[in-house]
This record gives sequence, structure tokens and C-alpha cells, in this order.
Amino acid sequence: MSRFGATGRGGVNRQALTAADTEARKMLLEWAAQRRFSSSIDPIGNLFIRRDGHDARLSPLLTGSHLDSQPTGGNYDGVYGVLAALEAMETLDDHGVETLRPIELVVWMNEEGSRFPPTTMGSAVAAGKLPLETALSAIDRQGISVRDALSAQRQALPALKERPLREKAFGYLEAHIEQGPILEQKGLQIGIVTGIQGLNLIEIEVCGTEAHAGTTPTGQRRDALVEAMALLHKLRACAQDPTDTIRFTVGRFEVAPGSPNTVPSKVHLTIDLRHPAKDVLNPIANRIMEECESHKGRCSVTSRFLIQSDPVHFDPRVVEALEQAAGAAGLKHMRMVSGATHDAKFMADQMPTGMIFVPCKNGISHNEAECAAPEDLTAGAQVLCATLHQLANAEALDRERIDAHAG
Amino acid sequence: MSRFGATGRGGVNRQALTAADTEARKMLLEWAAQRRFSSSIDPIGNLFIRRDGHDARLSPLLTGSHLDSQPTGGNYDGVYGVLAALEAMETLDDHGVETLRPIELVVWMNEEGSRFPPTTMGSAVAAGKLPLETALSAIDRQGISVRDALSAQRQALPALKERPLREKAFGYLEAHIEQGPILEQKGLQIGIVTGIQGLNLIEIEVCGTEAHAGTTPTGQRRDALVEAMALLHKLRACAQDPTDTIRFTVGRFEVAPGSPNTVPSKVHLTIDLRHPAKDVLNPIANRIMEECESHKGRCSVTSRFLIQSDPVHFDPRVVEALEQAAGAAGLKHMRMVSGATHDAKFMADQMPTGMIFVPCKNGISHNEAECAAPEDLTAGAQVLCATLHQLANAEALDRERIDAHAG
Repeated sequence: MSRFGATGRGGVNRQALTAADTEARKMLLEWAAQRRFSSSIDPIGNLFIRRDGHDARLSPLLTGSHLDSQPTGGNYDGVYGVLAALEAMETLDDHGVETLRPIELVVWMNEEGSRFPPTTMGSAVAAGKLPLETALSAIDRQGISVRDALSAQRQALPALKERPLREKAFGYLEAHIEQGPILEQKGLQIGIVTGIQGLNLIEIEVCGTEAHAGTTPTGQRRDALVEAMALLHKLRACAQDPTDTIRFTVGRFEVAPGSPNTVPSKVHLTIDLRHPAKDVLNPIANRIMEECESHKGRCSVTSRFLIQSDPVHFDPRVVEALEQAAGAAGLKHMRMVSGATHDAKFMADQMPTGMIFVPCKNGISHNEAECAAPEDLTAGAQVLCATLHQLANAEALDRERIDAHAG
Repeated sequence: MSRFGATGRGGVNRQALTAADTEARKMLLEWAAQRRFSSSIDPIGNLFIRRDGHDARLSPLLTGSHLDSQPTGGNYDGVYGVLAALEAMETLDDHGVETLRPIELVVWMNEEGSRFPPTTMGSAVAAGKLPLETALSAIDRQGISVRDALSAQRQALPALKERPLREKAFGYLEAHIEQGPILEQKGLQIGIVTGIQGLNLIEIEVCGTEAHAGTTPTGQRRDALVEAMALLHKLRACAQDPTDTIRFTVGRFEVAPGSPNTVPSKVHLTIDLRHPAKDVLNPIANRIMEECESHKGRCSVTSRFLIQSDPVHFDPRVVEALEQAAGAAGLKHMRMVSGATHDAKFMADQMPTGMIFVPCKNGISHNEAECAAPEDLTAGAQVLCATLHQLANAEALDRERIDAHAG
């Protein structure tokens, strides 16, 4: 998979619905066809690969992640969860193991959101949390819409069965690299993810006036960059945290018109703010919004929430099943909260959901240097495979335990 | 001219060698052809339109400016000097006035430098201050070279006589909007420009490490944006000036990779620094370079000069001729230093050079709202026409006075 969108510097640029993304999906569909797994696609471009179960009337167990990447992304974020799921399904096949329920590998469309905002677009639409029309109308910086890019990708893919957006499913499991340093620092192979920290994404625009750099005295300028920097200094102070748990990131910071000899008239920036506790996260986000609204300066400031996502807690029965599988395989593991958002977030209130983390080198992710050890990736796939096998044979998840199928 | 590259918001985006720039040049060549003025082009794409003089052996008097604009530029910067020159030449024609020397209107290629750095590219090459090959090899952000863009423009323009780079000329006059607030604030119509303030353009790159915004603790980040902001705060302090004479502008500030959920790994910025006095400007520029070189932080910092241009002083005989013309026309005028750089800077050490300024509304320039009053534009063109007429009839400029041709 790392060939598709390879940058030549060890990573990939495989943003959603680009030619590279299409090639990656084609490859996956080819592998699925070799196993005679059936494939389908929903209206927002989420791709499903199905291994039938014994009882066709039962809802499928879902597992997967995403194939799209950041503009300078690594080879593991997302793609690992897709390939671990395929590997698990192939392993069941290789051993002639039949499950009660079907297992469906899902490739969520546009998890990264770097080409088309927002992030986790496909799973948000699938969960009914983002209107399909809104998602299809999102545009990239060249003005191309998701609708047009998706239609072009569909043309390039083999013919696929179409499926409606919200088919009932039994549960969802996702394997992923940790994208943080904790497992590696503790010398563990498996993270049993109990939930995902909350995320607020705030968009801010600072507007001043363009002016000639050589002639306009400082006292007469309305310099959007100078003012954005002063504002950001105040906003960062709202998120001081001696425990270093809060995550405050300005990842996008665009200065217009961007000419060396013109005083900037506009700065467009985003603040990505995360914390595992809602009662810490939300007051900080609100203080930031208030600072923007009460800003007094030469430039105007507008701000709005692009994402307001509360912390998510995974189903304790799934968490337990994963923990038991890791223990049974003799793998060192711990429970942990995910620092990153994942598609699993939107599945969590639709169905019993859980995630498995494996360590990545130095905790580095969203970076071409992203790296994970084969033995850790294998360990994660083993826990995934064992838990898929167990849950796909369950008739129901009751409060106490997972009812295994008698057959 | 304001039709070519019109943004629909009152200004133009007519960056050098774009389709809009080509259309503007075509229009000008058509106007020239209607007057039977002859046209030629040099190897860097400077365009010349000639009105013959009485004595073909004498070197021409040059006048002009540029037609290219900032990405969000106004309708007067550059284009005024070109059209005022054409108007002056047409006026001489309309009145059947023959001059001793030829008058040549020159349209300098890529004065703004916003698409292809550096600024004043065409005049710098014409003055031998920038190697032709270096200029032709400059690329825009899409990787297109000046060489290729110029060749495409040549294909689209009517056939033009080619001329060598450095033909001898007798003098150079340029009319321009002031691009600052002084003339308007003083209620004057004409600025007699005595020189151009010095300019240092410094490029700085701050390099950190990309990381996931949700998982990477602040203490483990190498955030290029955070560090660039702290550095810039120190650099701005190097240029404190209670008289508000120094110009310190960060016009380009690019943050990569620019994804909301990725910690930035790179910031690329420019500092445009100007002052009329060399002994003030250069020490400040050097302190900025030293701050960058001695920077200690988590990110690496590199810096280099893109432009180091000393203040320029125009020929006192030309300054005096312009002043006399303004006085003779009964126009209120003053001597002043140009805050902006102009192509005249490179002509000043090649030949006797001078500039005329007219006021622009609120001193606003490099902005779509750029505006100048018709009566001021007319006044400037009158001073230009009178001085062109006088100098084009001069056999020589001696130390004491301009020798008018006896004929």
C-alpha cells in the first residue's frame, strides 16, 4: 500500500479521493476478489468487503479503518487497521473457519480531512452525524467537490454493488497505531482503548488591510499577521496546563495575500483542542471563543467551531473481550484513552465498539517518518483476529458476558 | 487596462507573464501600432515602444514603469507610469512636436516579483545587476520557470523586433502613484522624488517535526509555528523605531504541512526591511541575521538575504528639471524619498534618472482599493510630458544645466 502516493521520502501523500487513493482502493478490491469476498460502496464512498457468515440473516460485525493520508503522511496511520482486518479475514479463510455472522471490512472515506474538511467524514455520514449533502458539497482548495471527486473515483474503480448508508451492524473493531509515545515508553505491545478524548476544532479569521510594505508607516497599518500573532499568544494562555494533558495545536495558519512586499490583510487559522475530560475541555474552548469575540484591535476577528466532539467511551464488553484476547495471547497490554480521533468515534454510539493500539516509533505520526515494528503489528492483528472470531460467533452482547453461539 | 486580470472586486490580479499580463501587453502594443510607434523586446521580456526623434544617432530618453501587479493589486501601481508615458508620447504626436532624441516607453517585466522572485526583475537584468540566466531560471510556486512563461507570452504576442539587453540610453523618467499617505496629507499634487529608501529582504526558515495534534504532548513537540512566532517577536524588537521611519513587514509566512491536526514542521517567512539611511538600515538587518544565527530552541533556523539594496539618490539635474516643470505648470509639489522600490532604482546608476509621484487615496497601495484622482494623474502626466519634451531636446546634461538643442 505504501507504493500508492509514495513521496519518495518514506511516506505517502494519499489524500482522500486522489488518484493515489483510488489506486490503493483498487489494490484492496483486487485482493478481496482473489478471496471471493464481495464488495460494496455506500453513497459517501465508504467501501465494504464482506466475508459471509453462516447465518445470512444476522447483522455483520464491522472492522476496518481508512486508506487516505495526510499530505505528508506515514505508511501505518489508517492503512494498518485496513490490512490487519483483511489479514484476519484471510486467516479465518486459510483455516477454513466459518463464523456465525458475516465480517465486513470497512474502508472509511476521508478520515484525515486534510483535503476536504471535516475529518472522519465517511464515518460521520454513516452514523448520521453529518448530512450526506453537506459532505458531498465540501470542496478542496482547488474548488473540487467531494461529489465530483467521488464520482471520478467510482469511474476508475471496478463496478461495485451500491448499499444504503446505515445498514444495521453488530459491532465495530478498529486496529490502529497509537500515534503517541505511551506504549513504547512502557514497553507494551497492545493498547486496549477505552475511549477517545474530546476534540474542539476552532476556525479563526483575522482581517486587516493590505498595504505597501515600503510606504505605510507602522502606526497606520492594519497588519493581520501582527494581530493574529498577538491574539494567538492570548489564546494559547487560555490552555495552560501544567500536567501537559491538554493538546493545543495551530496546524493551519494561512497568511494572505502572501507577497513579501505587501502588509498581510488576512490570516486564517485553526485551533485543534483536545482533552479526555469534557469538564476541562469545554470551558477552555469557551474561553478561547470569548477572547476572540471580545478582541479589541485594529483588525476584525471572527471565530467558529468546526468540530465540537465530546469524549467518547467504548463499550465495556468489547473492551473486556479485547483485553481477554490480548491476555490469552500472552501479550503485554494496558488500557488507555486515544489522543487521536478515529472513525470508531462515530461507531461508538451506533453499536458496541472497541479499538486496539500498537506502538509506533517515538510516538511519531502524521509524519513521513511514521514507523511501527512488524512484531507489534502482528500482535495487534492477532488480537483483532481472535476478537473478531469470538464476536462474529456471538448471538448477542448481554450486560454480563458475550453469548457465544452454541454451534 | 484594469479589465485585464480584473478580480471583480475593483482590483487586478495581473502577475507577471500570466495570461492577463499578456493581454495587457497586447492592448498596449495595439495602441502603439495605431500611432505607428515601433516596438521591440529584450531577452528578459522588457517591452519597448519607440517614438522616433530627429537625430537617429542619438540615444533615446526612456520613460515607463510596469504592467504586472500583486495577486490582489490595484489599478494604478505601475500601470499609471506606462499609460502616462504613452499619453505624453501621443500628446507630442497630436501637436506635431518633433524631439531631437527618440523617446522610448519601457514596460519592465515582473516589477512586483510576487509570482517570480525577486522584485524589479526586468530592470535588474537590464542594468546588469541580476544575471539573465538566474532570472530566466526563477520558478513560481507551480514550478513554472520565467523562461517557459516568457516563451509562452512571446508566442501569444505579435511578432516583435528583438533588442539586446543593455542599449545605451540618455536618461530615465518614471511616473508613479506615491503608494503612501504624505502627498495627500499635505494637500499636494506632485512629489519630486529625490531617491529611494534602502531595502533588505531576508528569508527565514524554521524547521521542526510533524506530529499528531491529538497525541503528542506539548513537552515533546518541535512545533515550527510556535517557534517562528517566538523568533519573530525577538526580530521585530530589533527594529523598534519611535520615529516610525523603519518599515518592518512580514508579508510571506507559510506554514507546512498546513493540516489542522498536524503539528507544523516548517515555517517559511520573509522580512521586508526598509529605511532611507544606510547607516540605520544595515545595522538592524545585521542584528536580525545575528538573532537568527544565534537562535537556540527546539527547531532549527536558517536565514539569508534575498535582497540587499542600498538607498538610491536620483540625479540632481533631473530632480531640478522635474521641479521646474511642476512649478511652471503651477502645481503644488514637494521633494520626497520613495518608500517603495521602483525600476528607477536600477536605472539610477546607469543614466540620469528621476521620478514623479502623484497622491493616492489614503496612501493605500498593493490593495484592490488603490485609488487616485483623475486630476492628480493628469497633473503628473503633464509634468512628465513637459520634462520628456525638455530632456529629449537636450544634447547633453552638464553639471550646471540641461543644454537645450538649438534647433
